[in-house]
Amino acid sequence: MNAAFRFPRTVEWRGDRPGHVRLLDQTRLPLEETYLEIRELDALHDAILRLAVRGAPAIGIAAGYGVALGLQGGAALAPAAFCVRAREVAAHLESARPTAVNLAWAARRVVARIEREHARGAASAALLAAALDEAHAIAREDEAMCEQMGAHGLRLVPDSGRVLTHCNAGALATGGIGTALAPLYCAARAGRRVAVYADETRPLLQGARLTAWELMHAGIEVTLITDNMAARVMAERRVDAVFVGSDRIAANGDVCNKIGTYGVAVLARHHGIPFYAVAPSSTFDLSIAHGGLIPIEQRGSDEICEGFGRRTAPPRVAVYNPAFDVTPAALVSAIVTERGVIEPVDEKNVRAVLARPAR
Amino acid sequence: MNAAFRFPRTVEWRGDRPGHVRLLDQTRLPLEETYLEIRELDALHDAILRLAVRGAPAIGIAAGYGVALGLQGGAALAPAAFCVRAREVAAHLESARPTAVNLAWAARRVVARIEREHARGAASAALLAAALDEAHAIAREDEAMCEQMGAHGLRLVPDSGRVLTHCNAGALATGGIGTALAPLYCAARAGRRVAVYADETRPLLQGARLTAWELMHAGIEVTLITDNMAARVMAERRVDAVFVGSDRIAANGDVCNKIGTYGVAVLARHHGIPFYAVAPSSTFDLSIAHGGLIPIEQRGSDEICEGFGRRTAPPRVAVYNPAFDVTPAALVSAIVTERGVIEPVDEKNVRAVLARPAR
Repeated sequence: MNAAFRFPRTVEWRGDRPGHVRLLDQTRLPLEETYLEIRELDALHDAILRLAVRGAPAIGIAAGYGVALGLQGGAALAPAAFCVRAREVAAHLESARPTAVNLAWAARRVVARIEREHARGAASAALLAAALDEAHAIAREDEAMCEQMGAHGLRLVPDSGRVLTHCNAGALATGGIGTALAPLYCAARAGRRVAVYADETRPLLQGARLTAWELMHAGIEVTLITDNMAARVMAERRVDAVFVGSDRIAANGDVCNKIGTYGVAVLARHHGIPFYAVAPSSTFDLSIAHGGLIPIEQRGSDEICEGFGRRTAPPRVAVYNPAFDVTPAALVSAIVTERGVIEPVDEKNVRAVLARPAR
Repeated sequence: MNAAFRFPRTVEWRGDRPGHVRLLDQTRLPLEETYLEIRELDALHDAILRLAVRGAPAIGIAAGYGVALGLQGGAALAPAAFCVRAREVAAHLESARPTAVNLAWAARRVVARIEREHARGAASAALLAAALDEAHAIAREDEAMCEQMGAHGLRLVPDSGRVLTHCNAGALATGGIGTALAPLYCAARAGRRVAVYADETRPLLQGARLTAWELMHAGIEVTLITDNMAARVMAERRVDAVFVGSDRIAANGDVCNKIGTYGVAVLARHHGIPFYAVAPSSTFDLSIAHGGLIPIEQRGSDEICEGFGRRTAPPRVAVYNPAFDVTPAALVSAIVTERGVIEPVDEKNVRAVLARPAR
């Protein structure tokens, strides 16, 4: 590993039992690298609610540790009461962001582990140990998946190392080295030059606030552009590949991701530049035949009109603000998962790669 | 004309002699419609300097009136001294924005008129009258050119009236109904439905601040989007044509315009949507063979990192900030000028249409 290379620890458990959760406060980025040392369940709930931690995998890890944190005082409870308390803690955490699938998934996974141990007759102290063990497993698995995506995607990183990315699908969103950025971190660790153009990603500026910060933090060359400069950057042959993450992928390989991704894919195709999506297999929803069936969240006008702390558009102007778009599989050169690379992208290859074990 | 239809008077001469310049203060948009009543040369210089008036044609008109304004106290001067004073006033105005070609062009045109009248033996009062007359002519000609572009472009406005535009090439930038927006205003005046998607146009948000405001002001339906939503808007078949302005057009029809325009053109082509540029013949530079030879201004990082009054990117992040891009003629369906429509766009047609009289 390159000694100069470092990436942020987005979510960590510190100490053993008693221990606490340490979160990089992403609301303070990009101006301050501040860590929250969280010792109370309510504080973690609040941190999730106000987006101090964001990104589906990172939220899941925080939720897993959150269940352990909320149960730390419970070793004196009878085992049955401990299980009741575990479900209460999980439900409380889930209420912080009800639509965050990974939050509920992780919290319930820890509760299920506790209930399995309880069914085997474990004492409350052992149940608490099991909760923390399961939370660690979630974090470890996510970190490993990021490494696997990075390893699989490494061969797609162009020799020049010059790539463009959109939004943030990096270490800040996961428990490891990210999704879209994982192959780039792997290339940098291998001593290869990597130079990234980061779209600022309006309206919420995840590229400017988060991707630029985390790549600078890791010592990787990054150049910030506004979204509408990507076409010029491609025309000037400044990048040789595009790497993005994904929020949901349909059975046919259509990729739903942050608004703006689809436009980047069209531009990449026009300029003959490969366009790669990187996402764990859990991102695929094989019950959805194609991207046209994925519901697109419409968000309020304030993000566009007042996103920077002051009004920049006329009062009462009509706004269209879809949070995501869909890139048709035909524009996606390959999808990198922890199970391998789907290439070319079609339903047959999606199903074939997802059927493999992670490796 | 539709009674509900109105557009802002960006620059006007109020009164006769003595009179004054009335400017819509564009720095107060989109939140306030405030007019500056300017009676002193220095105040006009300052207004140009701080972008209270912007857009090449509008700046030219302001400069023409500015020369007249600066000479109002000069009727008591001897004619030769009046001419010296005229050159001083013009030079002072030009110093407000040295690179604004229209500013120098208009100021010098008024001075040249004064000098012609002086050569014919006119008295200073007559020279002052000539200065104001020439300034009015500049304003009138610009207004007429906008109308001509609107009339020529009207047939290109799709029956649906649903179009997308980028940046601001409207009434706020000219002495009339704009360039890119002129055909749309003409369609609206004819009672046709017009519905515009306006890209916000990062980094300086001319679309959000100016285009959205002027279309709302005119009673025309407008929906604001971030630049990276244009692709989705096109994929959803929400627009049937794109209209943009231009800062400079090469002999082969390559169009230089605000950064982001090229990307919109690529997206339009991908979706089978026509892409139109609208610009007066003065925008063409036939000495430039193709767009690759047009120098592109690179601007500072603050526009991207601190464009909204607070820092939104990491300190010292590298930024790439080209102010313009070039759309190859092959992606431009037609160019509308005051002399007619160039279609298809190639050097032969560019030269043929520019050789026509305005009409």
